[in-house]
Amino acid sequence: LAQALYDFTAVSGNNELSIQEGETLTVINWNVGGGWVEAQNSKGQTGLVPEDYIQVRKNIVIIHILSKIHINFFSKAPNPEVYLLSKHLPKQTDRLPIYMGEVGPVWLYPQSQLDCVVADPKKGSKMYGLKSYIEYQITPNSTNRPVNHRYKHFDWLYERLTEKFGCALPIPSLPDKQVTGRFEDEFIKMRMERLQAWMSRMCRHPVVSNSDVFQLFLTYKDEKDWKEGKRKAEKDETAGVMIFSYMDPEVPDLEEQRYETYSRFTRSMDDGVKDLHSVSHLHWKRCTGPLQKEYRHIGKALQNLSSVFNTSGYQGEATLTEALMTTGKIYEEIAEIVAGQPKKDLHYLMETNNEYKGLLGCFPDIIGVQKAAIEKVKDADRLVAMNKIAPQDKHNMAKNLSTMSYAFQAEMNHFHSNRIYDYNRVMQFYLQEQVKFYETIAEKLKQALSQYTNL
Amino acid sequence: LAQALYDFTAVSGNNELSIQEGETLTVINWNVGGGWVEAQNSKGQTGLVPEDYIQVRKNIVIIHILSKIHINFFSKAPNPEVYLLSKHLPKQTDRLPIYMGEVGPVWLYPQSQLDCVVADPKKGSKMYGLKSYIEYQITPNSTNRPVNHRYKHFDWLYERLTEKFGCALPIPSLPDKQVTGRFEDEFIKMRMERLQAWMSRMCRHPVVSNSDVFQLFLTYKDEKDWKEGKRKAEKDETAGVMIFSYMDPEVPDLEEQRYETYSRFTRSMDDGVKDLHSVSHLHWKRCTGPLQKEYRHIGKALQNLSSVFNTSGYQGEATLTEALMTTGKIYEEIAEIVAGQPKKDLHYLMETNNEYKGLLGCFPDIIGVQKAAIEKVKDADRLVAMNKIAPQDKHNMAKNLSTMSYAFQAEMNHFHSNRIYDYNRVMQFYLQEQVKFYETIAEKLKQALSQYTNL
Repeated sequence: LAQALYDFTAVSGNNELSIQEGETLTVINWNVGGGWVEAQNSKGQTGLVPEDYIQVRKNIVIIHILSKIHINFFSKAPNPEVYLLSKHLPKQTDRLPIYMGEVGPVWLYPQSQLDCVVADPKKGSKMYGLKSYIEYQITPNSTNRPVNHRYKHFDWLYERLTEKFGCALPIPSLPDKQVTGRFEDEFIKMRMERLQAWMSRMCRHPVVSNSDVFQLFLTYKDEKDWKEGKRKAEKDETAGVMIFSYMDPEVPDLEEQRYETYSRFTRSMDDGVKDLHSVSHLHWKRCTGPLQKEYRHIGKALQNLSSVFNTSGYQGEATLTEALMTTGKIYEEIAEIVAGQPKKDLHYLMETNNEYKGLLGCFPDIIGVQKAAIEKVKDADRLVAMNKIAPQDKHNMAKNLSTMSYAFQAEMNHFHSNRIYDYNRVMQFYLQEQVKFYETIAEKLKQALSQYTNL
Repeated sequence: LAQALYDFTAVSGNNELSIQEGETLTVINWNVGGGWVEAQNSKGQTGLVPEDYIQVRKNIVIIHILSKIHINFFSKAPNPEVYLLSKHLPKQTDRLPIYMGEVGPVWLYPQSQLDCVVADPKKGSKMYGLKSYIEYQITPNSTNRPVNHRYKHFDWLYERLTEKFGCALPIPSLPDKQVTGRFEDEFIKMRMERLQAWMSRMCRHPVVSNSDVFQLFLTYKDEKDWKEGKRKAEKDETAGVMIFSYMDPEVPDLEEQRYETYSRFTRSMDDGVKDLHSVSHLHWKRCTGPLQKEYRHIGKALQNLSSVFNTSGYQGEATLTEALMTTGKIYEEIAEIVAGQPKKDLHYLMETNNEYKGLLGCFPDIIGVQKAAIEKVKDADRLVAMNKIAPQDKHNMAKNLSTMSYAFQAEMNHFHSNRIYDYNRVMQFYLQEQVKFYETIAEKLKQALSQYTNL
């Protein structure tokens, strides 16, 4: 049994199932892949739904920690009114300036790029060994001094960032929380890699990386410093839409923007990324499953033929039997190369896609806030007429809407520039490794070929 | 419904079904591949049986024309007695000498190797177009003068060769007779290629290629010559075991031979060849099925992502979108390269395996004749004691048995030398093409890679 976390409207002809928030579903196939599961609703209708859209009941495992946050935070559709009516002027130290760059509105980027290294996972324990956990070492390039954090601290940071910036910036979810097998080496390695990717992405964001809470996480001096900082961050009242009040576009006010293009883009990219992810998943399974088996079988069949030929008692057999044996062994090697390749290259493409799936999942809400703000400002004339707000308030709302719009565009431009960088890099890496892969196999087969007699 | 043509003993753990000659079976899956079908016996047991071992009932199609011949000819286990007791001395012109070569007994090989080209299939018709057929042009290198033959003439030749030489030499079956779709281009091309392979193999055999009937087939002058030659060949009384009476080993008599090694070798090679054939079949299906589909899907997914990126409205997008589009198109090309490859290389490996399956299928009977002859000679003492044969007859029998054994060894040596040549050549060709295949893909991917910006 699972519960729908959000509305999802099926695209006809895609074997999808429309679901409504709160609806109870039965998952009938978890292994569809590509981020989809097959579910049945109470009317007995079945179809595919995005796995991020549902939450398992009667199960401690929460499929995506993001889901939880979404329920707590976004399910009360954030109302921009409180910000639109505010006249808050940011303090010089807290303000988040927006400039006009070559590509349009942009955030203020720091002179030197923050980054950090997540490494050295260590098992620790509490309560006389009754509770154990993994502690990671995080070393920012700003201080070059390592700090230690457990997964739950990352989770705490994620919650703070989502509360504070979630209305304006996509804060991608952390790697899945996993309860069983938490200490298996493979899992720890994978989680560390994903925490590294998540931290690097946060470091690359000029607004996030410069925030007090993020800096605290990376550079706290001692336990006392950490605890005090934590308490302060938890009391931070700049949550939800109020983040826009710190934003300070140093440019003239903006006309009302249309968000359909952005919605369409992020939705299409989400679909595109999911499709690439799903075929990558299939390809991975094929390489480590049937293809590996098949190349092993070819290898065995050739070696077997070589052994049989060896029993012929015929003279002048040796060259062929040795060549066949070599070829067979090389096909066995190829089986392992084929099965090991996805980990070497496809993995990074899939991780990038996965990160973008996480980022893109945040946009519907971010765009929702913008659209709601436009509606509020449209409604302002009526409110002025009803004497509910002053004409000056209406002017202020329009100005604040312009700020929101600048912030959105600065964020979109940040997103685009990162996207281009990330996909260029990961595709280049993937293709480099694929070229090496095919060249390695060609080289191995040439080696086999050289064993045969030229007739 | 099908009928078992021969006994077949299942190897345990291989999901095989033991069958007995004459038993009625129901074929439940024709598409197992690798020369196997899944069948059910009258007891309801199911399992794999070699498709060559069964014949479909209630159906005009005879799966392998060889089967028919086997029933007519070999099912009355050939009795070598009539030859063993004979004192026939071959005429100088007809004799088939056996020499002692480096590898043991060998046939007399001609100075220049006969070969022929099967080409130019033409549709002809008879009875005012009511019956149509395909005529092939066969040009031997001995005369360089083409002759025309229909499939039924090849079939006639096959029957003559099997009758005349089948007890001593493996005469592989012709390509399958097929009734439906006989005139489709693909089928005609495939049949011609197989007739070419069959003819080349027969040309390479010193005994077969030198025979009157084979020479008639290749070099008849006109219709009259052909008809007269046909009539003469059909009256040829040298059938079955009597072929040994023409064989003339120019070496001392041989001690009694053991045939277990030969049986084991031909059986093991048959298994080995079938295994390689079956994995090749699987691999072919994978390349033209799921792999092609998957590479196409990868290509489409990348092109789709490129199109989505193009709608971002962000500057500096062009290089990445073009690179992604190129990569996507290249993956689509790779899909077609992958799907087209088996036809270019695996095909020849499979055709060679198929030919050897045909040859190896003849050995049980050939070895059976030898074993029966050994038993007869062992029994000769008793026959002498009972005055059924004279002591001189016994001596003669032993001499004839030695001739049979020489003939068998000459044939085994011919088989081995051809096998080494064929497998060396086909593996070399396969690996050359595979190297090219992997290099081509690496080259294509390099081309895609060059489109990305170096960061």
